[in-house]
Amino acid sequence: MPKILSVNAGSSSLKFQLIEMATEEEITKGLFERVGMDNSIFSMTTNDKKIEKVLDIADHSQAVSMLLEHLLSEGVVSSYDEIDGIGHRVVHGGEVFSDSVLITEEVIEKLEEISGFAPLHNPANIVGIKAFKEALPNLPAVAIFDTAFHQTMPEKAFLYALPYEYYEKYGIRKYGFHGTSHKYVTERAAKILNRPLEDTRLISCHLGNGASIAAVKGGKSVDTSMGFTPLAGVIMGTRSGNIDPALIPYMMDRTGQSAEEVVNVLNKKSGLLGLSGFSSDLRDITEAAEQGNERAQLALDVFTDRIHQHIGQYAAGMGGVDAIIFTAGIGENSAIVREKVMRGLEFMGVYFDPSLNNVRGEEAYISFPHSPVKVLIIPTNEEIMLARDTVRVGGISVESLQVSK
Amino acid sequence: MPKILSVNAGSSSLKFQLIEMATEEEITKGLFERVGMDNSIFSMTTNDKKIEKVLDIADHSQAVSMLLEHLLSEGVVSSYDEIDGIGHRVVHGGEVFSDSVLITEEVIEKLEEISGFAPLHNPANIVGIKAFKEALPNLPAVAIFDTAFHQTMPEKAFLYALPYEYYEKYGIRKYGFHGTSHKYVTERAAKILNRPLEDTRLISCHLGNGASIAAVKGGKSVDTSMGFTPLAGVIMGTRSGNIDPALIPYMMDRTGQSAEEVVNVLNKKSGLLGLSGFSSDLRDITEAAEQGNERAQLALDVFTDRIHQHIGQYAAGMGGVDAIIFTAGIGENSAIVREKVMRGLEFMGVYFDPSLNNVRGEEAYISFPHSPVKVLIIPTNEEIMLARDTVRVGGISVESLQVSK
Repeated sequence: MPKILSVNAGSSSLKFQLIEMATEEEITKGLFERVGMDNSIFSMTTNDKKIEKVLDIADHSQAVSMLLEHLLSEGVVSSYDEIDGIGHRVVHGGEVFSDSVLITEEVIEKLEEISGFAPLHNPANIVGIKAFKEALPNLPAVAIFDTAFHQTMPEKAFLYALPYEYYEKYGIRKYGFHGTSHKYVTERAAKILNRPLEDTRLISCHLGNGASIAAVKGGKSVDTSMGFTPLAGVIMGTRSGNIDPALIPYMMDRTGQSAEEVVNVLNKKSGLLGLSGFSSDLRDITEAAEQGNERAQLALDVFTDRIHQHIGQYAAGMGGVDAIIFTAGIGENSAIVREKVMRGLEFMGVYFDPSLNNVRGEEAYISFPHSPVKVLIIPTNEEIMLARDTVRVGGISVESLQVSK
Repeated sequence: MPKILSVNAGSSSLKFQLIEMATEEEITKGLFERVGMDNSIFSMTTNDKKIEKVLDIADHSQAVSMLLEHLLSEGVVSSYDEIDGIGHRVVHGGEVFSDSVLITEEVIEKLEEISGFAPLHNPANIVGIKAFKEALPNLPAVAIFDTAFHQTMPEKAFLYALPYEYYEKYGIRKYGFHGTSHKYVTERAAKILNRPLEDTRLISCHLGNGASIAAVKGGKSVDTSMGFTPLAGVIMGTRSGNIDPALIPYMMDRTGQSAEEVVNVLNKKSGLLGLSGFSSDLRDITEAAEQGNERAQLALDVFTDRIHQHIGQYAAGMGGVDAIIFTAGIGENSAIVREKVMRGLEFMGVYFDPSLNNVRGEEAYISFPHSPVKVLIIPTNEEIMLARDTVRVGGISVESLQVSK
């Protein structure tokens, strides 16, 4: 029974999930928080048992050791040989990695070279990779990139209208993110729609604390709303999305901040938080809006309007759309967001059915049966995608592997 | 027979047109270029006669004197009393001016206060206003703002998802430009469509060296692609349009430029020029693309794709669209741009007829008669709008005034 460990390492966190690939079921999952700080937290769920410990964890290596010890002590595995591979989420693959890749010394070197593209994320991903390599040096490890799925975008979609040499010299282009999620939900949508993926035109709305929209034609990403970084596109919990770029020197001049500081405001203090003035969490925003808070209502309106418009944009980009998908925290759980985003698209064949919309976190149609364009909720599952790619790219043999539900 | 002078003053230019309001016909028009430099150029066309002079013109006051002298010496008017008013184009009216306004000392002071919003344009507009005020102090003069038409945008459309206090303290919001043109062509479209303006949903594509798209519902602008400055939105001759804002510190770091310098690159060296590497002029680009130049083809594809997508975006924003309008230099004259922008919108009821598209600079339908969404070419006429507003706001009595064709 082959088992794959899916890993997502952040700068002070480490998220993991052990998956039984024969059934694609989760065996255990857990999370380290505040790694490298005082009072780190380790939590792990296994066989209906929950562990939570608060202690000091100095670094990712120590977190990995602790994780592996618990897999044995909690009887999840009887030997590390039972783990067949590790899939590491890596945020940025640049143009070097257009698919998942078996991690070698050379791959790690290349990852370090392109770390400048995602200075907040890639270095943490690499630390995670190295920590597991140290603990389990012989286990096949695979890197799965958030950007890889979008590497099929045509040049006319990924290029900014900047001097062309900025692309050649500095790699400045649209990369896009959330690729693993967009890939999972669009593949799943084709199955639900019972259509060959090759014949679908799908718009995937990954709406979480980060949010991005992807246009996926025939199973290939042809456009996406995030850009060179995850700041671009629609508005998010704390991120502004697109603004007039000329605002940056203007804001520097008015506030006395540096360009870096201004972009930090755009990343950390804008979006729902900036507009509402009190929260980046959509649940707080919708609750306050219901109670008549005008700024919360404004934040909600701006958030949903820009997504609504983005759907029209990508429908035009693909010459039409067969289905629109909602996924991730907000997409899976917020009925009000889905309704506000979906209303007023009848002109392009979208007939949203509010009576089907009262759903949280499960696969569902929320369009009328006769709607030419289907609207779907599909909970995302990035961990499964990491595990599947680890099997595929790691050359791991999985008896009776069930690739799909 | 009331006559109005329409004036558009740039930093080193002055464009004018004298219009007979009873018929709305142009009596004379002309242009000063290189004002304040050596070898300034003055050109003027009147009664089939063309004047062109190269000489040194020190400033706008001298240009105005020269213009007025020529109106007499060429027999255009026999006395300045024949001129009933002057309409001045002003780029930025901030939130202070949501309509054209009779120019008083107080208005000039306010214009000076908000000059920081458009440091390249407003000061030049003010210089033009003052020069005419000096020469013809008793003539009613009206300021017509590029931003005013867009002041009907709702808050959810004009606000960026930034900390709200940036709007309150610094006036940071989307203003939009080309308002006079968007207003003219959408009013004209309602007439051509023979529908009350109040019942129309229109998308206006003003495509010139600067380019902007506007969503106009019931005669009111509800959204537009340019932003706080004319840099934002779709790509243009030399402007990038929207990019990931996080690119600015990245570009500063890579190229050693300041934020101002980077934004200068975005304004002056990007767009069609940046992508093609050789020209900002769409005619050069299309010619080279036809001859197989790949970078020119790329520039053309990016240019038309982003406009195409913007149309889908605004159709979604308004819940559908009745007509799409092409105007300004490129919109009126480039059949290839119109075709590339219009193809692939059948899903939203746009049936473009290429056989009608071989038109330059005249009003025409370019959609099939059965197309639910009409596509129109409407040459813009900002001068007429300036003159009409001068009459309206200046309280000028116009016998048998014909407000529309």
